[in-house]
Amino acid sequence: MGQGRCILFLFACLPASLLAGALPEGRWVDLSHDFAEDTIYWPTADKFAKSTVFAGETDKGYYYSAYNLAAAEHGGTHVDAPVHFARNKLSVDKIPLEQLIGQGVVIRVADRIGKDRNYKISVADIQRWEEKHGTVPENSIVLLDTGSARFWPDPVKYMGTAERGEAAVEKLNFPGLGPDAALYLAEKRGIKAVGLDTPSIDFGGSQLFKTHRILFEHNVPALENVANLGALPDKGFTVIALPMKIRGGSGGPTRVVALVPD
Amino acid sequence: MGQGRCILFLFACLPASLLAGALPEGRWVDLSHDFAEDTIYWPTADKFAKSTVFAGETDKGYYYSAYNLAAAEHGGTHVDAPVHFARNKLSVDKIPLEQLIGQGVVIRVADRIGKDRNYKISVADIQRWEEKHGTVPENSIVLLDTGSARFWPDPVKYMGTAERGEAAVEKLNFPGLGPDAALYLAEKRGIKAVGLDTPSIDFGGSQLFKTHRILFEHNVPALENVANLGALPDKGFTVIALPMKIRGGSGGPTRVVALVPD
Ligand SMILES: [Zn+2]
Ligand SMILES: [Zn+2]
Repeated sequence: MGQGRCILFLFACLPASLLAGALPEGRWVDLSHDFAEDTIYWPTADKFAKSTVFAGETDKGYYYSAYNLAAAEHGGTHVDAPVHFARNKLSVDKIPLEQLIGQGVVIRVADRIGKDRNYKISVADIQRWEEKHGTVPENSIVLLDTGSARFWPDPVKYMGTAERGEAAVEKLNFPGLGPDAALYLAEKRGIKAVGLDTPSIDFGGSQLFKTHRILFEHNVPALENVANLGALPDKGFTVIALPMKIRGGSGGPTRVVALVPD
Repeated sequence: MGQGRCILFLFACLPASLLAGALPEGRWVDLSHDFAEDTIYWPTADKFAKSTVFAGETDKGYYYSAYNLAAAEHGGTHVDAPVHFARNKLSVDKIPLEQLIGQGVVIRVADRIGKDRNYKISVADIQRWEEKHGTVPENSIVLLDTGSARFWPDPVKYMGTAERGEAAVEKLNFPGLGPDAALYLAEKRGIKAVGLDTPSIDFGGSQLFKTHRILFEHNVPALENVANLGALPDKGFTVIALPMKIRGGSGGPTRVVALVPD
């Protein structure tokens, strides 16, 4: 078919937005929890704090409000940059935009998790998804739905404890991605990034954080405390995760959204 | 033309990515400065600070790094939510995603700014763009390139002073959007959002912040300290600005990016 005729048919059939290089039509889904006093942080990490600089009527006759912020990098919906667990790997400001933007898939394992919530998502769990949907495509952003977001912001239900400080760490109890499955996704599937709806990509009882270390050696960032995965289809959508650009940061607050085409 | 035949031709002509509802092919441009000690803040605002929680080899034999953050909401590349200057208007977490995602245009005024950098971008400046490119489309995100980003991060060149505190405010000197032009964009053009490469959408010498107040009464957010506008065409690209989701925040750190189609 000649190029000219092809272009003619394109104009006849396509929505105008596509022709201008615009985004495809669809709905935006916010996969981010908000930052507030009740936002969940690791027991040893500084929680989010917002203090009022001014909020009210000024003496010039108009309303004005402004606040200050403080928090650890790792809490709420955030990204772990590779340098969080791997020396000389990428800090959060150096992660290429292209690596946190891409086609998403959701692997759902809520019904695999028993009474002990320290479940490790396995290669078999990924293969179960692949039997149904085909191979996880190269350059995917893989989101793991453990069903934990329904417990947010209750830290006892979400991660096993509301206690703070070093002694609380051994009480942590939540699902994560097993090291074998992390290696499978990084090496066999060549994914861009991974994310899940728990405080950490390693399960709550992890001592050695093997999954973090495997992923970050492969320069695969991890999104943690992701929200709202139930609003997504299992595949066929685009994830856009844009972190706060902290120079030299090991991670940071990240707005994670998805575009689900109509 | 029959629907079946149309679909057949679409499959023949289109890149596969479009068929899956994926983003159009193109390059991603980062319009964000990074957050560090030298990030520019308003003279009265708390600057960005990052403190080390840990960075080095752990006693378990692997590298680990993590930091804490503190800053005012308004500094570096950030968004002003309507509630910053308009009571009961949207806080940053409530701005719909769709309002900070859309087709972008760049209006360039660097050659209009004289020795006094307190220039107010006018309706005539916008109309000059419109004579060349056509009416600013409804639902655009309008970016104003004043040429100021080349001064970043030198606060004297960028905004007129490096001094801190209330007394420094009267020394501020940088271009902004004039109130008439703000009203034109909000009411006559129905834009989604506006952004520019200076510390404030009102010019440096502003006392009453009229442009902020006009925009925010119309629920039009403003992106400030935007970077890298010279890398964009004058139109025909998509802006995606994703703020940190601060509950009740008057604004906050925002990653601003653009997708420029091939
Ligand atoms: Zn983390
Ligand atoms: Zn601001």
